[in-house]
Amino acid sequence: MNKKRSRRELLRMGAVAGGSLLAARDGLAAEADARKLGIPLGPYGERSPFETATRWTRVSKTPETGSSFTPIQNSVGALTPSSLHYERHHSGIPAIDPAQHRLIIHGMVHRPLSLSMDDIRRLPSMTRTLVLECGGNSGGEWIAPGAADAQRGYGLVSGSEWTGVPLAALLAEAGVRPGATWVIAEGADACRMMRSIPIAKAMDNSLLAYGQNGEAIRPSQGYPLRLINPGWEGNTNVKWLRSLRLTDQPYMARDETAKYSDLMPDGTARIFTYAMEAKSVITFPSGGQTLPGPGEFELTGLAWSGRGRIDRVEITVDGGARWVAAKLQEPRLPVALTRFRLAWRFDGRESIIGSRAIDETGYTQPTRDALVAVRGTNSIYHYNGIKFWKVRADGAVVNT
Amino acid sequence: MNKKRSRRELLRMGAVAGGSLLAARDGLAAEADARKLGIPLGPYGERSPFETATRWTRVSKTPETGSSFTPIQNSVGALTPSSLHYERHHSGIPAIDPAQHRLIIHGMVHRPLSLSMDDIRRLPSMTRTLVLECGGNSGGEWIAPGAADAQRGYGLVSGSEWTGVPLAALLAEAGVRPGATWVIAEGADACRMMRSIPIAKAMDNSLLAYGQNGEAIRPSQGYPLRLINPGWEGNTNVKWLRSLRLTDQPYMARDETAKYSDLMPDGTARIFTYAMEAKSVITFPSGGQTLPGPGEFELTGLAWSGRGRIDRVEITVDGGARWVAAKLQEPRLPVALTRFRLAWRFDGRESIIGSRAIDETGYTQPTRDALVAVRGTNSIYHYNGIKFWKVRADGAVVNT
Repeated sequence: MNKKRSRRELLRMGAVAGGSLLAARDGLAAEADARKLGIPLGPYGERSPFETATRWTRVSKTPETGSSFTPIQNSVGALTPSSLHYERHHSGIPAIDPAQHRLIIHGMVHRPLSLSMDDIRRLPSMTRTLVLECGGNSGGEWIAPGAADAQRGYGLVSGSEWTGVPLAALLAEAGVRPGATWVIAEGADACRMMRSIPIAKAMDNSLLAYGQNGEAIRPSQGYPLRLINPGWEGNTNVKWLRSLRLTDQPYMARDETAKYSDLMPDGTARIFTYAMEAKSVITFPSGGQTLPGPGEFELTGLAWSGRGRIDRVEITVDGGARWVAAKLQEPRLPVALTRFRLAWRFDGRESIIGSRAIDETGYTQPTRDALVAVRGTNSIYHYNGIKFWKVRADGAVVNT
Repeated sequence: MNKKRSRRELLRMGAVAGGSLLAARDGLAAEADARKLGIPLGPYGERSPFETATRWTRVSKTPETGSSFTPIQNSVGALTPSSLHYERHHSGIPAIDPAQHRLIIHGMVHRPLSLSMDDIRRLPSMTRTLVLECGGNSGGEWIAPGAADAQRGYGLVSGSEWTGVPLAALLAEAGVRPGATWVIAEGADACRMMRSIPIAKAMDNSLLAYGQNGEAIRPSQGYPLRLINPGWEGNTNVKWLRSLRLTDQPYMARDETAKYSDLMPDGTARIFTYAMEAKSVITFPSGGQTLPGPGEFELTGLAWSGRGRIDRVEITVDGGARWVAAKLQEPRLPVALTRFRLAWRFDGRESIIGSRAIDETGYTQPTRDALVAVRGTNSIYHYNGIKFWKVRADGAVVNT
């Protein structure tokens, strides 16, 4: 979008603002005088009682097993508040005393280690802003594009600033023995959630994270220690990390065989499909929202790729006939949520809006049809088809 | 710090980790079996009950007037959790219903505007990660470097991701009349806090922010609307923004004459000293903390400049005789908190540690003596001298 066009669109927006024109003195005089002292200062702030968006929670047979979905339709910027970060737990959130917690590094190493949180926190650390996405996010779309809103359909994705110690440094300390090719990561939750991580990933950029968004990781995100595998499906980012065992083969854990594997049309299954491919979703306007009427709006949404930076996001408002480049918020960090925006005039006629992301590898987010042609509809995981919303003539936004 | 040196330092750290060596099987067996279901999923997450750091609050005669200081000694990464963002209020936090709130743009404009929050939120927006620092942060150091810890001495600084509408766009809508050179910003708090902003700043990069760290601004940060002036003293970033009046002169408000002005040694005062100069502080180890004993640690802290990016941070561990470059966390964003780190071996002898920041303009954070030579000690605001901490032989860290 060039500068000239942007200015022209803003001027059109004047038609909206024009409705609010008034003599300023009258406006200020009319306001009820609220000159009473406000709420005192305090040690710990909370959000406004007028802000009521919460995670939408879907549990299975017990309240300890299920998912909580981030209200991305209310998101602004490229971070997710820690209180609203999506959750996916298999046996609830353990209450861990960090003074008692230890990480064991063992198996095919020369020097097994047992590290306290104090041991870990004094090691050289780094900070990265990263997207986390559940492998099953938007999995419902394999069957039909049916979620009523962006939260329930696409809310298993969140963005945080993570701080921790590169796993490679600790593996060097432990001394990896020849032949070790896998790291089996195990959580301290009751089900001892496990995933097998190829050692190449561990040596490349896995992080032992203790910090999230400027403070300690939240309990629902793995307090006090979480394995972060940048760009890989959420489930591999083992929470409440208690053990890393070096082996010469994967563990074939429940969550990498029965679950988090991709059943193909021919009945075979792809397993260890770790990386999350490029994806995007328009968050405003999105399902369940209603535009107040024709006029100028800013379309906005989130794009991300497990493979690196988002290079481009394209928007259609006519169901895919024409596409225009959205404006991307800088800095575009690799493997992080990227906010996109585009000024748009809703003219009061039904519009089909959608977005497609292109990442720095050149990969373009596919249509649902293209995805289904390869993967069939047996899958649950790794759905990243282009998402459309229908803006009806009356301004109501619905799935399509 | 080059790669070779980093590796060498990490290996030295092995001496620490070595104390924790054990046969892994024993370690895991010894652990109490905690295989009970954890806490259920939920709509809104909270931090761990083991995390107890809060803001330190200092009020004047009423609890509605004063400051809350961020616990920066516990900070990780480059963001501040919104619940712990510093506060400085003059008449408490107003409880504002966003559906009732309006921003009036009036005075020397062709088309006065009265905008609802809905009007503002549909305009083209942008997101910036920025530091906010109270003009009075570390003001106690003018008299003597006396604060017991980093929080009480330096905690009036925080970092957030802000989202909002460029003020320039709305001024273009309103149509600035010839001769208008100032924007008088007024808050909706009981004292109607006001600051005068030169129109050049407003046109350059001021933001009408409604979002902070991925959600609506917190009440203590100006909900629902705050004027953000990147790089300028916190007080100019008017909270609960209700009015912008264009004029041909500054208002000479209380907070730009009696307060937030710099009394010089000769009795004259500098006023409208908006920009916050480059500054840094070591957050670990810092006052009130105790090292467990000699060994390897990572020194870390925060640097920032109201003038742009941090180019370099240098560390001394011998009271300023020698300085070495710290590692800076990327991305280094302009006018944002920048995390710095340096591996350091505490050898059990008293050490005077300190940091100095150099920003992209080439400006170097001065010593306290250099600052006092120019500014005297009548000032309260804009103290940015180099901060030293003394690590005593027993590991206790104190002011110096």
